[in-house]
Amino acid sequence: MKPVAIRNIPRAPAEHVAALSRFGVSTIHEAMGRSGLMKPYLRPIYPGAAACGTAVTVLAQPGDNWMLHVAVEMCRPGDMLVVAVTTDNTDGMFGELLATSLKARGVVGLVIDAGCRDVKALTEIRFPVWPRAVNPRGTVKATPGCVNVPVVCAGALVNPGDVVAADDDGVVVVPRADAEAVARAAAAREAKEEATRKRLAAGELGLDIYGMREALAKAGLVWLDEAP
Amino acid sequence: MKPVAIRNIPRAPAEHVAALSRFGVSTIHEAMGRSGLMKPYLRPIYPGAAACGTAVTVLAQPGDNWMLHVAVEMCRPGDMLVVAVTTDNTDGMFGELLATSLKARGVVGLVIDAGCRDVKALTEIRFPVWPRAVNPRGTVKATPGCVNVPVVCAGALVNPGDVVAADDDGVVVVPRADAEAVARAAAAREAKEEATRKRLAAGELGLDIYGMREALAKAGLVWLDEAP
Amino acid sequence: MKPVAIRNIPRAPAEHVAALSRFGVSTIHEAMGRSGLMKPYLRPIYPGAAACGTAVTVLAQPGDNWMLHVAVEMCRPGDMLVVAVTTDNTDGMFGELLATSLKARGVVGLVIDAGCRDVKALTEIRFPVWPRAVNPRGTVKATPGCVNVPVVCAGALVNPGDVVAADDDGVVVVPRADAEAVARAAAAREAKEEATRKRLAAGELGLDIYGMREALAKAGLVWLDEAP
Amino acid sequence: MKPVAIRNIPRAPAEHVAALSRFGVSTIHEAMGRSGLMKPYLRPIYPGAAACGTAVTVLAQPGDNWMLHVAVEMCRPGDMLVVAVTTDNTDGMFGELLATSLKARGVVGLVIDAGCRDVKALTEIRFPVWPRAVNPRGTVKATPGCVNVPVVCAGALVNPGDVVAADDDGVVVVPRADAEAVARAAAAREAKEEATRKRLAAGELGLDIYGMREALAKAGLVWLDEAP
Amino acid sequence: MKPVAIRNIPRAPAEHVAALSRFGVSTIHEAMGRSGLMKPYLRPIYPGAAACGTAVTVLAQPGDNWMLHVAVEMCRPGDMLVVAVTTDNTDGMFGELLATSLKARGVVGLVIDAGCRDVKALTEIRFPVWPRAVNPRGTVKATPGCVNVPVVCAGALVNPGDVVAADDDGVVVVPRADAEAVARAAAAREAKEEATRKRLAAGELGLDIYGMREALAKAGLVWLDEAP
Amino acid sequence: MKPVAIRNIPRAPAEHVAALSRFGVSTIHEAMGRSGLMKPYLRPIYPGAAACGTAVTVLAQPGDNWMLHVAVEMCRPGDMLVVAVTTDNTDGMFGELLATSLKARGVVGLVIDAGCRDVKALTEIRFPVWPRAVNPRGTVKATPGCVNVPVVCAGALVNPGDVVAADDDGVVVVPRADAEAVARAAAAREAKEEATRKRLAAGELGLDIYGMREALAKAGLVWLDEAP
Repeated sequence: MKPVAIRNIPRAPAEHVAALSRFGVSTIHEAMGRSGLMKPYLRPIYPGAAACGTAVTVLAQPGDNWMLHVAVEMCRPGDMLVVAVTTDNTDGMFGELLATSLKARGVVGLVIDAGCRDVKALTEIRFPVWPRAVNPRGTVKATPGCVNVPVVCAGALVNPGDVVAADDDGVVVVPRADAEAVARAAAAREAKEEATRKRLAAGELGLDIYGMREALAKAGLVWLDEAP
Repeated sequence: MKPVAIRNIPRAPAEHVAALSRFGVSTIHEAMGRSGLMKPYLRPIYPGAAACGTAVTVLAQPGDNWMLHVAVEMCRPGDMLVVAVTTDNTDGMFGELLATSLKARGVVGLVIDAGCRDVKALTEIRFPVWPRAVNPRGTVKATPGCVNVPVVCAGALVNPGDVVAADDDGVVVVPRADAEAVARAAAAREAKEEATRKRLAAGELGLDIYGMREALAKAGLVWLDEAP
Repeated sequence: MKPVAIRNIPRAPAEHVAALSRFGVSTIHEAMGRSGLMKPYLRPIYPGAAACGTAVTVLAQPGDNWMLHVAVEMCRPGDMLVVAVTTDNTDGMFGELLATSLKARGVVGLVIDAGCRDVKALTEIRFPVWPRAVNPRGTVKATPGCVNVPVVCAGALVNPGDVVAADDDGVVVVPRADAEAVARAAAAREAKEEATRKRLAAGELGLDIYGMREALAKAGLVWLDEAP
Repeated sequence: MKPVAIRNIPRAPAEHVAALSRFGVSTIHEAMGRSGLMKPYLRPIYPGAAACGTAVTVLAQPGDNWMLHVAVEMCRPGDMLVVAVTTDNTDGMFGELLATSLKARGVVGLVIDAGCRDVKALTEIRFPVWPRAVNPRGTVKATPGCVNVPVVCAGALVNPGDVVAADDDGVVVVPRADAEAVARAAAAREAKEEATRKRLAAGELGLDIYGMREALAKAGLVWLDEAP
Repeated sequence: MKPVAIRNIPRAPAEHVAALSRFGVSTIHEAMGRSGLMKPYLRPIYPGAAACGTAVTVLAQPGDNWMLHVAVEMCRPGDMLVVAVTTDNTDGMFGELLATSLKARGVVGLVIDAGCRDVKALTEIRFPVWPRAVNPRGTVKATPGCVNVPVVCAGALVNPGDVVAADDDGVVVVPRADAEAVARAAAAREAKEEATRKRLAAGELGLDIYGMREALAKAGLVWLDEAP
Repeated sequence: MKPVAIRNIPRAPAEHVAALSRFGVSTIHEAMGRSGLMKPYLRPIYPGAAACGTAVTVLAQPGDNWMLHVAVEMCRPGDMLVVAVTTDNTDGMFGELLATSLKARGVVGLVIDAGCRDVKALTEIRFPVWPRAVNPRGTVKATPGCVNVPVVCAGALVNPGDVVAADDDGVVVVPRADAEAVARAAAAREAKEEATRKRLAAGELGLDIYGMREALAKAGLVWLDEAP
């Protein structure tokens, strides 16, 4: 790994990001054919956190947040900062000061496969963060990493400029070139689900709506009136 | 394991469930002689979640929520759905649509040794869930499991029809036949604790209320005025 | 380990505790040269929990909360109870009754490397607890441990009388003799951060404020306009 | 939970145990329709460990091995001791002395959802143990539990007298009444696998032997000569 | 994710694989600038396991090993099978039969971000596997995934045809195009280390060989004769 | 934390270390009144590893092994190097080269709350290491830490010069001043156990040898001939 910081990256078009931002993470993930998720250990620092933006990526060393400072300069309004680490680490690489700086640049949120601190202040200013841990542990600025290279963050591949959406459910990555198609598929899925929701609320069974009984029987399921 | 779904199960009587529902999980667990708890990794999806009902049980395959649809049909008002999985898995087997369906049938909550998604929507409609993880990951409907067989869920044995109570502290299972006796024991315990609480609030020490000093000395505890 | 309970301990002076209590855990930890933190698996039972006090320490056996009762008697107003266990354990050693007793003695909070229960009641009475798990599991009173001996709690050494501060970010221990100096250093740090915060909010970059560009280049970082 | 020790239990017949002992754990588990497994965190203390016997069950308190001493008296030649704990615990509840005692009574091995110590000595005398951790931590003898009640051990329900088999792959529980049928099914499976093994070794593909190609295509799999 | 199986992939040239196979995983990882590692939870099933080959990749569903059968057909002599799963899963997807089949096709080893079983038999036939767990749990064949698409396995991106090397230390991925250069860098590193090893064995200090004393002092390290 | 390296430390006398080295870790831990253990996640890199020596302590930064080089110079024959890290980290801070250097100085082993690599080579030269993980991940040399200050390593407080013993069971720390007394207590314990072992091997029960029946009954245990 050679330390490098890339200034300019192709980003998913703003209108595609806007289209995706109307949907929840679970819906987007389904619309992608059930792919793109980060591991569920990333959790929002406050309930109701939600953000959707274009990824500026960071590859950091454990216990070292130097590259986050480098990345700030690469950020534009509508970006989402995505921080991967070369190894498992939960140190508090991010806090109120960096959030202030990112907000000043129009960044919409942060996904970090490491720790976050100052959660009270971040909650007050409503800067949403999805860390793997809350941790006051401070970090050094000693070893460079990378900005805007492809990274694996919490188990998912992220290319700079991809769309990253995050909410109470988790975090999903949409490849830049797929953003428009995924937004369309998400809209279709949501429309369909709305109809199903009404039928279920009225007491119809999924078994009947989806016509599952025959497939279940074929797969070997046996219904009994009482335990044998 | 042969895939089977049992339609009718004996349930703990509604009045016993009602009696138990007045107590917290910690109290019920103590009233059972400190047994019946599920592992503490099951956590409610919102603060203040609480539910108590008769168990309809599901044994699902990892990454497959087919049997939840089968189970919905077996549910009656006052039931609590309890989902075990054949192996450790955190996929998002349950979300808003299934919750809508369960609510329509009068189900009071869900305990699931797997993942849950749509937590924002579930919180808004106040459908309480105790999952082992929040996870947007979608599931297939490919391999049948069982409904209303005895299951081990999060370390606890649950028989269909047992009472399952859950709140901010965790989840406890009360065998069907013990529900009435446990409710009585819980009431007795709570009455006694109320008296103790007042004395403690007034500044009395547990050491004195419970008469522990002698037993502690006998067990070898030595009091010193200063560190040696 | 001989079971012993020490009645009198030297405590950090109240004015030093008061001085420290004005700062967050992350700031105090930085002011100590990035030391003193407990592991991040300790989490507050409700958002906004915060406490700062002098440590009364407990070393308990797994699944046994007898020594907490012994410790209550040693507590004075302004103390923070710190419970270590001889082995990893998440049983619910602490709940509403003990909290009532501690409140009656003026204790400001509890840090426990084990489980806590009755979180709803504890939240209502605003008694802050930092446990490693929420767990209804009850405990026995069978084997004595120690009160007011040095303990390792969640990875940090705590001597009786040290200052322990806890908030949404985590828990930090300040050695008794260092409390005053650390409070001063924290104040200095906070003043400096306030100035930086304003500059960052105005759009200045950390890279420039901290003068990092040259050091980064020297350490090998290369800036590129585009990905190679 | 009332502390109780049951002296006499019905055991699976010795000839059924002998029949099962010829097969590996993976084969037995498959022959049961893929059920009966304990969680994979139980690992043998030395490579090549293998045992199969009738379960004498223990429910112990965390950090307390008193009931293991009680259980020894209930053991007969051909038994396997199975120790569950009321809560997660890794203390070293079992070591060389207890192993000496169990060997003297003809016990064939130990499965324990807690810690084990003296692994060097146990390896030398070839007493096989499947613990969840190796841990020198000693335990107290202070609080009684149960012997020969149904327990949930490492996620699996074990009734006294069930057959428990363990090897390098893990641990499986066969209900007493099913032992004979499972042994027969295991034999059938092994015979069938032997034939398959030969064909696979000769270069035939599982795709062809099992006739999977059509089912895969029907399930949506597409074969491409090159990446698109 | 659309289920797809790619028959033909570009592979790193055999001579580059051969060149890399002479080095340990730690050396290769260093020669790549400290990148390419999978997470350390992947462990060999027996001491001394070592393999180096070209990756045939699988993306499987949890608890479903269908795609491994599809992948066998795509394997050639010198390949290494690399199995990723769409979600965390430790089921025993791989055992003796599949190993027999892979051996028949000249495959050198298996890296799997899931479980493995039949470890005794696999050890006897010396087929090396790096799983995340040993687990007898059987799997279904119900839902297709992918073969020979890029996958994230245990935190590392693997493209089909990349070189994957594994030994007692862990698993490393070398991008196909970098294989030759990395082998050269590894050779250079090993030569240099050999010289250093001799000097260290003779009692010279790394501090002096690497000339670290000045840099340490500059970074703030203070040497004291005695504790203050 | 100010970076400091202390050259001279008081060490437990060689004859006390020699006396302790005759006993296993479990015995020493018991002889200390069941204290002094490190967490059981530290495991030896090969079966049969055993070492006992005087602690030279290191406090390292995550992913940075600079201070190990500093520590080598402080080591003398009979020392045991003990490495703590400021935060959870499993990077491979230690390998063959450092082992060569330590061997040249007469160091008997390494305990490290981080990763270790080159396990094959270390096994061949029989240099015993107790790491928390095996990991090829290389480290930087960028940020100084401390040598020969008190550290918390894997949950245990270690002062420089304390005796650290490690074997297949785990790792224990004996305070320097207690070494002689602990060795004596260990010898007494072992003598007593030898007598008990013989009686147990002859078929006597621990229940009778230790006279536990009455205490068990008093504590509430009930014996039943059959399950109720």
